[in-house]
Amino acid sequence: MMLPSNDPARKSWVPVPEGSDFPIQNLPFGIFLTATDQRLRFGVAIGEHVLDVSALAVTGLLGNLGFDMEVLQDSTLNRLAGLGRAASRNLRERLSYLLAANCADLRDREDLRATLLTPMSEVQMCMPVHIGDYTDFYSSIEHATNVGIMFRGKENALMPNWKHLPVGYHGRASSIVVSGTEIVRPKGQMLPADATNPVFGPTRLLDFELEVGFIVGKGNVMGQPIPIAATEDHMFGMVLFNDWSARDIQNWEYVPLGPFLGKNFASSVSPWVVTMDALEPYRAMGPAQDPEPLAYLKGEGPANFDIALEVQIIPSNGQAKTVSRSNFKYMYWSMQQQLAHHTVNGCNMRPGDLCASGTISGPTEDSYGSMLEITWRGSKPITMPDGSERKFIQDGDTVLIQGHCQKGEVRIGFGGVSGKVLPCVL
Amino acid sequence: MMLPSNDPARKSWVPVPEGSDFPIQNLPFGIFLTATDQRLRFGVAIGEHVLDVSALAVTGLLGNLGFDMEVLQDSTLNRLAGLGRAASRNLRERLSYLLAANCADLRDREDLRATLLTPMSEVQMCMPVHIGDYTDFYSSIEHATNVGIMFRGKENALMPNWKHLPVGYHGRASSIVVSGTEIVRPKGQMLPADATNPVFGPTRLLDFELEVGFIVGKGNVMGQPIPIAATEDHMFGMVLFNDWSARDIQNWEYVPLGPFLGKNFASSVSPWVVTMDALEPYRAMGPAQDPEPLAYLKGEGPANFDIALEVQIIPSNGQAKTVSRSNFKYMYWSMQQQLAHHTVNGCNMRPGDLCASGTISGPTEDSYGSMLEITWRGSKPITMPDGSERKFIQDGDTVLIQGHCQKGEVRIGFGGVSGKVLPCVL
Repeated sequence: MMLPSNDPARKSWVPVPEGSDFPIQNLPFGIFLTATDQRLRFGVAIGEHVLDVSALAVTGLLGNLGFDMEVLQDSTLNRLAGLGRAASRNLRERLSYLLAANCADLRDREDLRATLLTPMSEVQMCMPVHIGDYTDFYSSIEHATNVGIMFRGKENALMPNWKHLPVGYHGRASSIVVSGTEIVRPKGQMLPADATNPVFGPTRLLDFELEVGFIVGKGNVMGQPIPIAATEDHMFGMVLFNDWSARDIQNWEYVPLGPFLGKNFASSVSPWVVTMDALEPYRAMGPAQDPEPLAYLKGEGPANFDIALEVQIIPSNGQAKTVSRSNFKYMYWSMQQQLAHHTVNGCNMRPGDLCASGTISGPTEDSYGSMLEITWRGSKPITMPDGSERKFIQDGDTVLIQGHCQKGEVRIGFGGVSGKVLPCVL
Repeated sequence: MMLPSNDPARKSWVPVPEGSDFPIQNLPFGIFLTATDQRLRFGVAIGEHVLDVSALAVTGLLGNLGFDMEVLQDSTLNRLAGLGRAASRNLRERLSYLLAANCADLRDREDLRATLLTPMSEVQMCMPVHIGDYTDFYSSIEHATNVGIMFRGKENALMPNWKHLPVGYHGRASSIVVSGTEIVRPKGQMLPADATNPVFGPTRLLDFELEVGFIVGKGNVMGQPIPIAATEDHMFGMVLFNDWSARDIQNWEYVPLGPFLGKNFASSVSPWVVTMDALEPYRAMGPAQDPEPLAYLKGEGPANFDIALEVQIIPSNGQAKTVSRSNFKYMYWSMQQQLAHHTVNGCNMRPGDLCASGTISGPTEDSYGSMLEITWRGSKPITMPDGSERKFIQDGDTVLIQGHCQKGEVRIGFGGVSGKVLPCVL
């Protein structure tokens, strides 16, 4: 599907610096406020500016988009997401038209431009949606294999179910925070090596997990699965995701019901929702699946997306180190398959729900998506520019995840998700 | 703490039949509507009637309860819960005063009584709260041991962590439904005995889980744990809970990240929230804990509650069979310990969140809380009154869970949670 908004030749009258994540071909959706206006508003990123869509809607320049335009005044994107793919497509196409270099409607209205466009440096980005339920998958075969080798040995690395279904579990929605929110090092129970009794204290093995996620658009009625061919109609857009993990707490607690306190202290999400329409040109084939999945998991055509990802650790001294370069296209299980599986038992999804990918590790050591794998449980520390070592994340470190798609000169970026780790308060 | 509302001698001017779950000492909170007025309203159960608290608040008869009385007009109990223990106590005490036999304020206002009191048979009960996050614990040592024996043998029944922390995991909030909602038999992947490849179809091992849960009142700020001594200030009240489970789907999927589609197709909750104040007289000591728990899990005094529970299977022919009689006092880990553990890593709770107990099995076979245990994986089917057998739950069966506390003549009941199983739609 070639949308006018995706035309690589299209330019905006809003300046877009080279290498920007936010050319006119992107137009991701978000929620923002400013120091002088603390109301939560709907914004779209263009170059180094945020366009106030809530205010734009009131001017009438959006015209009639065929849905209840009141949703554009909401403090979250949930209701827009719930309207389905066509509504957000109509909106994005209209915004693309208004922002195009050859369109005078807004370009030549200096009065409006001054109030509607705010430099990114002057806005505060907020949670884009209220997340009702959050599910984390485990869909990278490289990650599952690495973790499996570490904990169960090479022979039993992948569990028998892994290649038959996209393994996933429920996470905590309340502690998902927007990029920039500081993360307090959690404390908890852990079992020291060779001990039989657990001890209590701050986690010593604080980790990130490089993930992306899709936000659910239109929901489904409980008891009515979403067939795989219809799954993309139920996806609103994608975000970057850091699933912070305390490995020592997780290891001790997770048998037999899965991760709990080792994960639910915090997860960080990027503020800009990149729409599935903007990502359309970057489809990629996923790895061949063997054994063949059951019928309800069989999709057609390329269902992966070529999204280059990287992770930096930035200590307080600012001397950053890139610790991982991975790609979303490596995923064994696609988002289509995740959503078809999630609902095949009748489980109902609601607009704004988040389904995260699980750690995205690539085939090579420099593409692993967690410190657990990068340093192989701490046995191969990495050296930072200042000469210090990292086995896991230290207090004062900021973890920054970035991601983008690129074809020719067009770059569709996510803008990053970051979080700084604060010391544990005992 | 002896509250006037708990005085066993107190009677109401509203008739309360013998054996009713809802004497004046209970006064549980709920949300209801009627055929003639479809607005969701706040109600309190008294005998066989529902008192419309939303409408009562408007009359001025509640006086000034020291909080924003607008919350009594909400369509859920979340904001009231979030005000904390004192607010709901003030409300309950005032309702107890107004409903007492010797109080004429409402008793003698026939005009008001006619509009404020509706027979239970004429109301439809709704979800009492919007559940932001739902956590399921695994706190019955009998249940964990039974399941452990079945799946890992007697020697390894309890995992090494089990006696050190209240094991729990996150469940799905979107598919929690109020009592009376029909449940569609889920389909999914399962691994037949001796097979290496899974098959797809309706679950053959549909089960209930006898649970109760507490609803969170006042929340906590992310990063700030709730100390165990403060936990009860953060509990709003309790409900009955049926954590429907598809055992074959669960068995195949749950390694290594825990239950997912085997659980998230539906859970049923009772509509009446019995306040912690109403339950106060029924405190009980839990089992001795050995090894001694870590400091953050050490509470004082009796933290369990003596709540008699029973489960009935009611086939379409109406010939019910009671399949379990258990008690909440058996639980190894208390709700205090669950909440202190859940937040010790800084995880934030929000008003209306639900923490369920996990299956409540007692020490004897007739007190087991799931068909998995009652029929020991189907090896000991139970016989129904009509001579048919049950290993698990069949289409057309209704599962009804009831629970109550009793001391002398006062009975504090929960009113039941039921759900009828419909055939799978393929």
